[in-house]
Amino acid sequence: MTDQRLEQQLAFIVEIDRLKRILRRTSLIDGDRRENSAEHSWHIAVIAMVLAEYTNASINLLHVLKMLLVHDIVEIDAGDTFAYDTVGMLDKEARERSAADRIFGLLPDDQRDEVRGLWEEFDDCTTSEARFANMADRLMPVLQNYHNGGGTWAEAKVDRTAIDRRLRLIGDGSIALWTHVQVLLDDATARGMIQPESDAHPQM
Amino acid sequence: MTDQRLEQQLAFIVEIDRLKRILRRTSLIDGDRRENSAEHSWHIAVIAMVLAEYTNASINLLHVLKMLLVHDIVEIDAGDTFAYDTVGMLDKEARERSAADRIFGLLPDDQRDEVRGLWEEFDDCTTSEARFANMADRLMPVLQNYHNGGGTWAEAKVDRTAIDRRLRLIGDGSIALWTHVQVLLDDATARGMIQPESDAHPQM
Repeated sequence: MTDQRLEQQLAFIVEIDRLKRILRRTSLIDGDRRENSAEHSWHIAVIAMVLAEYTNASINLLHVLKMLLVHDIVEIDAGDTFAYDTVGMLDKEARERSAADRIFGLLPDDQRDEVRGLWEEFDDCTTSEARFANMADRLMPVLQNYHNGGGTWAEAKVDRTAIDRRLRLIGDGSIALWTHVQVLLDDATARGMIQPESDAHPQM
Repeated sequence: MTDQRLEQQLAFIVEIDRLKRILRRTSLIDGDRRENSAEHSWHIAVIAMVLAEYTNASINLLHVLKMLLVHDIVEIDAGDTFAYDTVGMLDKEARERSAADRIFGLLPDDQRDEVRGLWEEFDDCTTSEARFANMADRLMPVLQNYHNGGGTWAEAKVDRTAIDRRLRLIGDGSIALWTHVQVLLDDATARGMIQPESDAHPQM
């Protein structure tokens, strides 16, 4: 160990404290404040741990947890982009790449490369681990919205077609959990938390 | 999979959302609000991931991360007990045991036993993994207090002897990090964030 190496690692650890200030659109389950990205990252790591048995394909759970713990850190500079914000989505990639350069660049080179690799793997979503991690990331807002009366679904007035399109990635990680999510979405639609498919988005 | 098993797992996942409301005594590094136990759990899991190379003994990192992700969940019922609150510490164990019964009891039996085992292992602090996990848990407030002008050290007016007594567990997990923490504590004491050893607690 060199002192410089440890100093770099601690600088990264101190810097990422700011993830606790990045607010997501989703509210806590009892609804009275928005969730931040740090506590969200904790929650989905626990989800992965508790629901690992439902994965479609064999996964290395340590790798999944590492990915979930670091996947939102770029939001410190890039902000959280709401899933249904089509304008914000346009330059999301460029904003997040600059953020990754700066924040992961605080780490020693070998760890910078590892963490950047984890973040890119999560976004590319082509490995079993990334598919399961993305499942956890998308399952959480379903539970939050379902249990707090509709949450961002109701707020943003997104319809069932748009929700299904965004959430079907859950099935790539776990068909069993996607099946259960469909039941929750059917119920949420029946109870008026989600608008049924709109005329503006006819099914082809 | 049975539906009942999944329902139990999801009930646990929904319940632990409340950890986001449990406030610790420590403030965020930029100081303007207290930290909650969910975001704290995320942060120390990242610490374990980034600083794993400094462990004294060989560790299974997956096991460390699982322990860190669940170790504070009992606070949902038992509250966070401030490390230097000697009165609160008296019934901490009983409060936390009831909390563990209720909250871990939401899970299917096999997972209830696993999570309870992880929580007990963290508290007993006799395995290499538990020592490293406890190191991460105690290192974080050092960084927070050091970078926000003294934080809970200054607030609670704890002196250097009490701090050393509480923090020496860091050395059981990592001598290298304990050596670095001593440098930070020396500097914090020199800069008046920590009271030097008081006459009330003479060194024997």
